[in-house]
Parts: sequence; structure tokens; C-alpha cells
Amino acid sequence: MSKIKIPDTMMVAVLNSYSGPDAITIEERPVPKPGKNEVLVKVAYAPINPSDLATLHGFYGFKDPTPIVPGGEGSGEVVAAGPGLMAKNFLGKKVACTGWGVGGGVWSEYVVKSVKGGVLSLNKSLSLEQGAMSFINPLTASAFIDISKKAGQKAIVMTAAASSLGRMVNRLGRSEGIQIVNIVRRDQQVELLKSQGADIVLNSTASDFEQQLHDACHQSNAHLAFDAVAGPLTNQVIKAMPENSKVIVFSSLSKQKVEVSPDQFIFENKRVDGFWLGPWISNQGVFKIMGLWKRAQKQMQTSLKSEVRKIYPLQEVKEAIQEYYQQMTGGKFLLKMS
Amino acid sequence: MSKIKIPDTMMVAVLNSYSGPDAITIEERPVPKPGKNEVLVKVAYAPINPSDLATLHGFYGFKDPTPIVPGGEGSGEVVAAGPGLMAKNFLGKKVACTGWGVGGGVWSEYVVKSVKGGVLSLNKSLSLEQGAMSFINPLTASAFIDISKKAGQKAIVMTAAASSLGRMVNRLGRSEGIQIVNIVRRDQQVELLKSQGADIVLNSTASDFEQQLHDACHQSNAHLAFDAVAGPLTNQVIKAMPENSKVIVFSSLSKQKVEVSPDQFIFENKRVDGFWLGPWISNQGVFKIMGLWKRAQKQMQTSLKSEVRKIYPLQEVKEAIQEYYQQMTGGKFLLKMS
Repeated sequence: MSKIKIPDTMMVAVLNSYSGPDAITIEERPVPKPGKNEVLVKVAYAPINPSDLATLHGFYGFKDPTPIVPGGEGSGEVVAAGPGLMAKNFLGKKVACTGWGVGGGVWSEYVVKSVKGGVLSLNKSLSLEQGAMSFINPLTASAFIDISKKAGQKAIVMTAAASSLGRMVNRLGRSEGIQIVNIVRRDQQVELLKSQGADIVLNSTASDFEQQLHDACHQSNAHLAFDAVAGPLTNQVIKAMPENSKVIVFSSLSKQKVEVSPDQFIFENKRVDGFWLGPWISNQGVFKIMGLWKRAQKQMQTSLKSEVRKIYPLQEVKEAIQEYYQQMTGGKFLLKMS
Repeated sequence: MSKIKIPDTMMVAVLNSYSGPDAITIEERPVPKPGKNEVLVKVAYAPINPSDLATLHGFYGFKDPTPIVPGGEGSGEVVAAGPGLMAKNFLGKKVACTGWGVGGGVWSEYVVKSVKGGVLSLNKSLSLEQGAMSFINPLTASAFIDISKKAGQKAIVMTAAASSLGRMVNRLGRSEGIQIVNIVRRDQQVELLKSQGADIVLNSTASDFEQQLHDACHQSNAHLAFDAVAGPLTNQVIKAMPENSKVIVFSSLSKQKVEVSPDQFIFENKRVDGFWLGPWISNQGVFKIMGLWKRAQKQMQTSLKSEVRKIYPLQEVKEAIQEYYQQMTGGKFLLKMS
């Protein structure tokens, strides 16, 4: 049994409408009680991910009626367990927890989670800061490399490549022998990625960007792109790639529609589809995901490490989001719950 | 041997730059001589297809250096043959001919074609007018139905559905038990398609179009769309369809980029790709295509019949194109070569 005293109430970030961070209030709520096969997690840290921002604006795939508690992943300690041996076994453990399913989002001092998929034990060597970011980005990066290898690709295109995810994909790609054609939009990001060992980093604001991208895609034979931006950049990417290429859209940082010249589909046999982590995980089966998770845990110190830019208390979540919006690359913002 | 006297020169439509119909001139050129396994066709009729218009503007998949002779398909009589038994066997026959490969486009009084894919014998019961349109639209409609059946679809969405191709897909779909969710943009086209037996015909300019389309797609369980329009309509179509749907773009009548909300790709597992008749035929194998061709020949009197709106002499090709542009549905414009 945990020795931590559990209070009656807790502070929670609540999104009152899908209209962005201004619709967040910090509220006091009763600490929930875990049911059968559930545990109560005292949340330590939670990152602000792009998918959280999408949630705030109502652009994410799940859209429960408001008010909701946001927060797609986090870390903490299991401080109480409901009935069931699996739940009891988690007591006192450091865990990563997901922000979906039972208990909802994790921007909260405490959260109830199901032991069937809602919590995963963290390696002892991993800090709670790193543990808070051990699910969404590491598994997404692992998924991209897995998809690329299955598609027989030795080179892939990555947009928004200076993001935490982009840098993970670079490090993981390097360790797996997959070359990354990186696209960023500032010279500073070009330098950052090159200083971290990336070979090909293109600035999409350069006047000869399209030609450079064409040459890079054809020389490296990249037929697969992972696009976090959408808008006109998707068209630039797909046009630059060889015939029979595919763009996988997984985010929409530009907040614009995907644009593609029809001739790319008709005459060049190119395709666009999407990626969403949740269904991808569901389709892989438990053993593969547990294997990826265990490997990701080990790699969290190296290729899957996330940098932390700043830690804000939960009460200052709006300020944290505002600052994140101003510059989305250069390390994660973490919320510290108490 | 043919008894037709072959002149030394012929009239040909020549596209001098990829800048539309104004760049066409009518020129006198020497009548070409067929080489080994080639025949000389005295061209009778050729339709003006949307793919011809795309060619004139340089939007088509093939873009040889100008000047070129346009014209993607036509009909005629074989009046001379080069060496080779296959070529001799075609002498005096009524044929359909394609506008690609050896000899190029068919907007010409005479054209040389390879007997390996450039000419196909026409059924005796078929007029040269119908024969001129027996390749591109009938095989495209057959391809769409084939693709739909292979995808297990009992219902599909069709944009620009009042076009000659759209009406063929409707008739063929009806005979094969596939329901068509038709999209047009004028009430008159709604009435036309309904008078020809179509059940579901939606006008994309109606204020409740998106809701109607959503309901039609979900009620009919249509997970596949064939889109000739592109632009914002593609987004309306893909949004209206159920999860796991696909849009196949095969033309771009709107002359706009394909637009799709990123969430459709990311969260709804939807996809966009393209269709081009040439590669599709190449991927099917000769026997399947000959089978489709023979069946299409029989159906040219019924479900694959094309209506003729007007016949123009080759010399008036520009006027014909201008009139076609003003209203692209309601029957084909044919060019008569001599």
C-alpha cells in the first residue's frame, strides 16, 4: 500500500468549449476512486503535445461533449488501486499514463486509469519528466520507422522535422539505416538538425526549395513522406517525389486543407492517406506494442529522448500554451501537477 | 488491297504550344507510310474528350514537345498496310484507333498506327460515329465498375455524373447491380439523369447538398468515389462518406487543386489516389482488356452508347472546342475528318 496521503479534492484543468486555451479553467474537483482493475495515479508531469492543441480547438479525432479534461499523456505514481490483482500490482509504481479511455485526460493532479492499456510501468532508470513523454512521440516515431521498413523504404521525407517528434524520427532512422529528407521553415532549424547529425535539411522558405526537394527525393529514392503540416506544403512534397509515392498526413500544423494537384494522383500514381496513433496501435496487437514500448523505454535515454524546454505548474497552463504557440520547436513544455 | 486512292498530302490539326485551342492550326502534311506491323488509317471521326482538352492546355500526363497532333481516339478504315501478316489482315477493315504510341494523335485525315495496340477491329454493326468513341469512355466506365466490384462496393459516388462517361457508368452500374450516388451541378442535369433511370442525383449547388450527400453515402454504404472535378468538391465528397472511404481522382474539370481536410486522412482513415486509363489497361493484361473491349463493343448500342451532339469538320475544330467548353454535358462533339 502507498504511504502517500490522498486528499479529498484536487486541481484539474477543464476545457469548457472547443475554442482553444482561453476556454480552459482550473477547477477543484473531488479526487476520483478507482474501480475494479483501475488505479489512481498521482500525476507528476504531462507534456503539451500538438495533439493536445488540436483537442483544445476541437480538431482532434475524439470530441466528447465539453467540459472535458485535456492531456493526452503523462507520468506519475500509482497511489491507490481498485479491486483486482493487476491493479494491486501497480501500487507504488512509477507509470506512464494515456489520456484516453477510462478517466480521460491527465492535466489533473490525480487521475483514475484502467490497468488494461491506461497505465504502463516505467523503467526505474527513467525520470518522471522523460516518462511523461514516453508514449505518444516515441511510439509515433517507432510507427513511422516501422511503416517505412514495411514499405521497403531506405529514405523518407519528414515535414516539421525540427519538432521533438521530427528529431526522434531522425535519430531512430539513423539507427535503423533510413535516411530522412528533412523539411523545416527556418535556417536556425536547419542548423539545429544538422548539428544533431542530419544530412539533408531543407528550408521550405528558400527560393529554390522545390528544386532542392525534387533532387533530394530523387537522389535518395524517397517514396514515402510523413507530413505534419498540410496546406500547400503537401503539394510541394508530393510533386517533388518520384512516381508511385505516398504522403501520410498525421497532423495539420498549418491549420489549412491538404492541397494536391490532380495530375499527381492521375498521372503519377501518387496517393495521400493518414496516420493516427490509436488505431495504428490497435492494429498491431498487444505483443508488438509491448515490444515497441520496452524498446522505446530503453531508447528514451538516446534516440527517443525528448528535450524539455520549460516546466510550468498546472495553474499556468494557458501561459505555457501561449509560449509554446510562439515557437513549437526546441523542446517540450511540461506541466507539473503539484 | 484497298481500292481507296491515297493522296500525297492530308490536312492535320497541329497544336503549336500548350496554351489551349487557340494554339491549333490546320496544316497540310504528307500522308505518312506505314512501317512493319503498321497500318495507315483513313480517319473518319474523332470525339473531343476532356482528356483532349487537358492535352491542349498541357495538363495531360503525356507532354511531348510541341508541335503535336492532338486527338486521343478515333475511328476509320485501314487503307494501307506495311510489311507483316497482322498488318495485312487489317486491310479494308473498320477500326477504332488510339491517339497514343506510334503515329500520335488522330485529329488528322490519315494516321499510321501499330497493329500492336494502336488499332482494334470494330464490330460490323457499329457505326463509325460510335466506333470513334469506343475506347476511352467505354473502357474507363468498365474500369470503374471493375474496380468497384473488386473493392466489394455495392454503391459508389460519381461526380460530373451527367457527362457521357457519367451516364455510361450509371447504365453499366445498373446492369451490374451497383448503385450510383450521382453529383451534378444543375437541376437540368438532375432531371436528365433521373429521366434515364438514375435513383440518386444530387445538385452540388443546393444549400443542403452536404447533408444530402452524407445521407446518401451512409444509406447506400458508398465507400468509393470517382471524382472528375477536384477542387473543394473533393473535400465535400470525402467528408460525406463513411470512415475508411477512398476518392479516386481521374480528371480535374474545376482546374483547381484537390482539397481535403487533414482530419479526413488522420482520424477517418480516408484516402485519395488517382486513375489513368493507360496504366490501368497495362496492368490488366491483354486477355482481360480484349474481353472488356469485346463486351464493350456489344454494349455500345446500349449501356455504353455515347450520344452525339454535333459533328464539325476538322477545319472547324476550334469552334467545336469553344462550343464544347460552353456546355460539357449533353452529348459528344465529333470531328469529321474529310
